[in-house]
Amino acid sequence: MARLAGVSRATVSYVLNNTSAVRISEPTRRRVREAAKELGYVPHAAARSLRAGHSRMVLMPAPTVPVGPLYGRFINELQWALGRLDYTVVQYGTVGVHGDEAVRAWAELRPVAILAPGSGLDARGVAVLRRSGARAVVTLGPEAVEGAHALLMDHETVGHCAGRHLYDRGRRRIGVVVPREPGLGVFSGPRLEGVRRAVRGTGATVTELPLAYEEAAAARLAARWRELGLDAVFAYNDEYAMLLMRALQDEGIAVPGETALIGADDLMLGRLLRPRLSTVRIELPSGRDLAELVDRAVRDPAAPPERRTVLGAAVVHRESS
Amino acid sequence: MARLAGVSRATVSYVLNNTSAVRISEPTRRRVREAAKELGYVPHAAARSLRAGHSRMVLMPAPTVPVGPLYGRFINELQWALGRLDYTVVQYGTVGVHGDEAVRAWAELRPVAILAPGSGLDARGVAVLRRSGARAVVTLGPEAVEGAHALLMDHETVGHCAGRHLYDRGRRRIGVVVPREPGLGVFSGPRLEGVRRAVRGTGATVTELPLAYEEAAAARLAARWRELGLDAVFAYNDEYAMLLMRALQDEGIAVPGETALIGADDLMLGRLLRPRLSTVRIELPSGRDLAELVDRAVRDPAAPPERRTVLGAAVVHRESS
Repeated sequence: MARLAGVSRATVSYVLNNTSAVRISEPTRRRVREAAKELGYVPHAAARSLRAGHSRMVLMPAPTVPVGPLYGRFINELQWALGRLDYTVVQYGTVGVHGDEAVRAWAELRPVAILAPGSGLDARGVAVLRRSGARAVVTLGPEAVEGAHALLMDHETVGHCAGRHLYDRGRRRIGVVVPREPGLGVFSGPRLEGVRRAVRGTGATVTELPLAYEEAAAARLAARWRELGLDAVFAYNDEYAMLLMRALQDEGIAVPGETALIGADDLMLGRLLRPRLSTVRIELPSGRDLAELVDRAVRDPAAPPERRTVLGAAVVHRESS
Repeated sequence: MARLAGVSRATVSYVLNNTSAVRISEPTRRRVREAAKELGYVPHAAARSLRAGHSRMVLMPAPTVPVGPLYGRFINELQWALGRLDYTVVQYGTVGVHGDEAVRAWAELRPVAILAPGSGLDARGVAVLRRSGARAVVTLGPEAVEGAHALLMDHETVGHCAGRHLYDRGRRRIGVVVPREPGLGVFSGPRLEGVRRAVRGTGATVTELPLAYEEAAAARLAARWRELGLDAVFAYNDEYAMLLMRALQDEGIAVPGETALIGADDLMLGRLLRPRLSTVRIELPSGRDLAELVDRAVRDPAAPPERRTVLGAAVVHRESS
């Protein structure tokens, strides 16, 4: 490459490593870069980050639970916004690896920041990550973790919103669907708790309804619906709501006459149902705002942990409730 | 760490780097590892891969188009299976970066293998990746690329299956929904072509129906349905099928009496519709099979490129067609 560019090997190394300690003219730099391009030279990110002592890599451990379309869109937007700020987002799937072992696997990659969705990170894990050189650790979840910035996403507010709505519509015996699918407890637990809080002290009752995402399971639940004596149900989300609405209708139970029904997520499919599905619209922060928070945290790694509540909820009232 | 383990610094380095050239007893190795654990030592993946000359990293550029639940599940399973074979799967989101630039960003990470979904990789890109040290490049998409192993996923077969079914049900004027959403052309184009091939030479007609995934757009299409004179429609997938079925029913068009309707993907929601939605079930290969293919390719980097057709399709006939 030195020969092609007509410069010394040291010069090639200085230019490709972007060394600023040595003065090299712009035309020479350009000649080296053109030669590198012609030869198909690709720098080694690992070597570069070793030299620089840090990387521009923002590591996002891939969520271990199935994420809905809403959250998927949010993650996409966040990746895009971080890319605009010149970070490289790496989604790291550590399937079957948990706790300390997972944290060590993340630390090995020496990311400049970690954006950890869900739980699975504790104060010790944050310390390991910081010690390995991460300038910022940001959690996305229901609770703050010591030493890390926290974007608090508390799904309790989603349940509270739904419970309050059903109560205001005059319903007093409220069922709450709790998916049997593994991994969803982190969302369904707080949602159930939110409904409970919404009706606390009012005399209204809250009944937990475990339900698998299967037609047969929904049919079984619908078959014993009248024994349960419920007049309303918060169905966890729009997909479970669609499943349950169909089963109730097949059983001859009028929605909303006999049972009011509300979902969550405000998916398109809710608008296509008859009656049109009421839902809780979940408001996630913009990817751009979060990307800026990450960037600030990286620039000032000694700043005290920030805590922000980033999940909002609002009822979209349609026909089913 | 040397002090804690009671050994020399050189011994620590040999143990942590897994150097086999130097004989160190198992008890000493254990002592060093325990000291490392106690001190919270995390090796540097980059440094390790520089020393080893390669990594166990399988890079998957994140798909640039929204993926459905089916494909998402497939990717999860594949990651899990590669994890079992001791590979680390890194999903790399290079949003807004295309072509050569994207390939260079992938090569910089020095993965041992690249599993590239969709298009966006050409023969030149494969060469750059191989030259940078990747032992295997595997594409997942409609066409093979020179120098890479190919898992051929040709969606033409999905359309062919749907078209054949509608023809066999006696339909002769077939509409095919083509989503207006950007990025889906890679699937919708071949699906449309598949329908065309299924009825070629029969006298049946195929009409392209551009449709945005919005209620208003579906209502506009349904309003001019009778002018179009169609007796069947392949609605791209189950979600577009649900959207269109609702619009047709709201317009008073009987499904399947006046228009037969078929989707694709075999999602739960299709079974919840009335009439129950006919669909094309797409059969993806098992994640384990693919993981084994990647592993074989890594072990034998000089093997000639393998080409396998991995997408199957079968009609699930319900009530809407």
